[in-house]
Amino acid sequence: MQRPYNFSAGPAALPEEVLRQAAAEMLDWHGSGMSVMEMSHRGREFASIYEQAEADLRGLLAVPANFRILFMQGGGLAENAIVPMNLSRGGVVDVVVTGAWSQKSYKEAQRYAQARVAASNADDRHTRIPPPETWSLSPDASYVHVCTNETIHGVELHTLPDLAALGSKAPLVIDCSSHILSRAIDWSRVGLAFAGAQKNIGPAGLTLVFVRDDLLGHALPICPSAFDYKTVADNGSMYNTPPTYSIYIAGLVFQWLKAQREGAAAGVAAMEQRAIAKAGLLYGYLDGSEFYVTHVDPGSRSRMNIPFFLRDESLNDAFLAGAKERGLLQLKGHKSVGGMRASLYNAMPLAGVQALVAYMREFAARHG
Amino acid sequence: MQRPYNFSAGPAALPEEVLRQAAAEMLDWHGSGMSVMEMSHRGREFASIYEQAEADLRGLLAVPANFRILFMQGGGLAENAIVPMNLSRGGVVDVVVTGAWSQKSYKEAQRYAQARVAASNADDRHTRIPPPETWSLSPDASYVHVCTNETIHGVELHTLPDLAALGSKAPLVIDCSSHILSRAIDWSRVGLAFAGAQKNIGPAGLTLVFVRDDLLGHALPICPSAFDYKTVADNGSMYNTPPTYSIYIAGLVFQWLKAQREGAAAGVAAMEQRAIAKAGLLYGYLDGSEFYVTHVDPGSRSRMNIPFFLRDESLNDAFLAGAKERGLLQLKGHKSVGGMRASLYNAMPLAGVQALVAYMREFAARHG
Repeated sequence: MQRPYNFSAGPAALPEEVLRQAAAEMLDWHGSGMSVMEMSHRGREFASIYEQAEADLRGLLAVPANFRILFMQGGGLAENAIVPMNLSRGGVVDVVVTGAWSQKSYKEAQRYAQARVAASNADDRHTRIPPPETWSLSPDASYVHVCTNETIHGVELHTLPDLAALGSKAPLVIDCSSHILSRAIDWSRVGLAFAGAQKNIGPAGLTLVFVRDDLLGHALPICPSAFDYKTVADNGSMYNTPPTYSIYIAGLVFQWLKAQREGAAAGVAAMEQRAIAKAGLLYGYLDGSEFYVTHVDPGSRSRMNIPFFLRDESLNDAFLAGAKERGLLQLKGHKSVGGMRASLYNAMPLAGVQALVAYMREFAARHG
Repeated sequence: MQRPYNFSAGPAALPEEVLRQAAAEMLDWHGSGMSVMEMSHRGREFASIYEQAEADLRGLLAVPANFRILFMQGGGLAENAIVPMNLSRGGVVDVVVTGAWSQKSYKEAQRYAQARVAASNADDRHTRIPPPETWSLSPDASYVHVCTNETIHGVELHTLPDLAALGSKAPLVIDCSSHILSRAIDWSRVGLAFAGAQKNIGPAGLTLVFVRDDLLGHALPICPSAFDYKTVADNGSMYNTPPTYSIYIAGLVFQWLKAQREGAAAGVAAMEQRAIAKAGLLYGYLDGSEFYVTHVDPGSRSRMNIPFFLRDESLNDAFLAGAKERGLLQLKGHKSVGGMRASLYNAMPLAGVQALVAYMREFAARHG
């Protein structure tokens, strides 16, 4: 039986192969006699799961050797505090406000640092990323925070800025929660990247942090030791007990990603090609439609999260009910934006987007 | 086939029925077409899982209505910071040091408050809980911290103290990570209780916090909003995305607990009877043995974590290898204590302890 297509913005769809393997291994992982949930995080079995996951992730994203990968807890919202506790030294933080998530990051950073808004798209109702050449960067910022894909507003920064060329000496911090592993990351332009797992990686409750070596060791005294990046790094993410089962599922996703191919492209490059094709299909249909509309500026459109609206919003409930009947799930937009939202993460096949567009076309024909 | 008996101190064994149900529901929870991992935390399906888990837990532990139950992340080590950030108001904190875990709590609380040692069993090498009537409590403490079961040192506080009778007006904070749900909690003597899930509840990465209403709303300004108990409580543990799959597994464990019976006892009362029987069997054998020894004072012995030693420690590796051959897993002691440790959490059946004692007897006969 065909599983439904799940367009949730997160927690989100996972590859069916991953779920099947997790189910098959639930009672006995590789002859160990234990579920992965039952293993000591310090035992040989879990150590092998952890090391494989980290190595696969490092390979998939070509993470340089001078970056540490940390497996943490708390999600993006906790990182909004953990980053300034570790990096700000109580000084200036430049925040680029591009939507709901970076707005939260700005507000939280104010607890620990002199956070300022370097740029904002609030006047555009978060539909267009402010071009980096317009950002007002401080000469003395401890870091510059950018959310490179806004899950709620559906804007994506498609090229990471060269902060040095813009006159800033600060490291760039990116919240890439909702598009990680859908495209390459230019690490030469990044000091720290973080991502909640529950969109493109695995179960909620796991947060990945990639941090350049030289940024470790500067935490404020009030930073909890469990969230001091240096403590976490020095203990191989085992200072506190890590979310072992979530790391295992993430590892299965990484193995699935490594096996993905599109022509000559593999892994993340293959996912990027698919993301371009999937998003292109839906945007192409929306742009040609008089029944639906999307408000995001074409240059800032996210490949992952696509908010759209029925021009006649009185049909919203009928649209969602019909979608559910067709096995097209979780299309309702975020309450702060309204309308619909289709999240097209890595686990969403092109066939899912084709099914969505076919349904949208049919619904429009019936009600247009 | 009989699964091995897993004596891990945490992450630890789970009931086989829970694992079987999780495996069976992995691709499609109750006809939703989704794995629980794939559900929006704000959707109807997950809301029902969450509400059931909370209600079952409240029932199992008879949690009064003036306590909120929070589903958080970070484990006990993060709570060591989160508790003083929320409760200390920067004032005095009395810590009873009973082993490795409360020692960590003491050290971490110093970041946020005037933490002081109200009592310590360091001179006894953490083998005996200092009697409450010997605790030196401050007249003005914001709270008194006690770890009611020390996982590493194997000491357990069997009766919660009445702080008011000891001259303290402060609320009692208990870290009950490693014996929660193995016995009742006298909530009239508690202000806040916390427990990492990975011992007696479910997967690592979930932390349960039970907090009395009047203790909410006093967080220090530097407390991350994701860890401000009032923010978490006001948002029904959904301020940040909760560890949804771990909550689901915990919920299955709660349902399993509700179904457990020992004579007229059910749920937690049944688990307590079993814990007494299981621990009694192992301590009884140890006390009668000249081959093995345990150093914990009889009045402070933990029912959950039982460290013991072979008198001839050169036989340790042979003991562990033979145990593994018999399907008796993860018996190696914590590195700071050495020797062996058997953790007898709720998911360990009496038959597992019987098998362990039979093996110990046989090993002693062969090598004694």
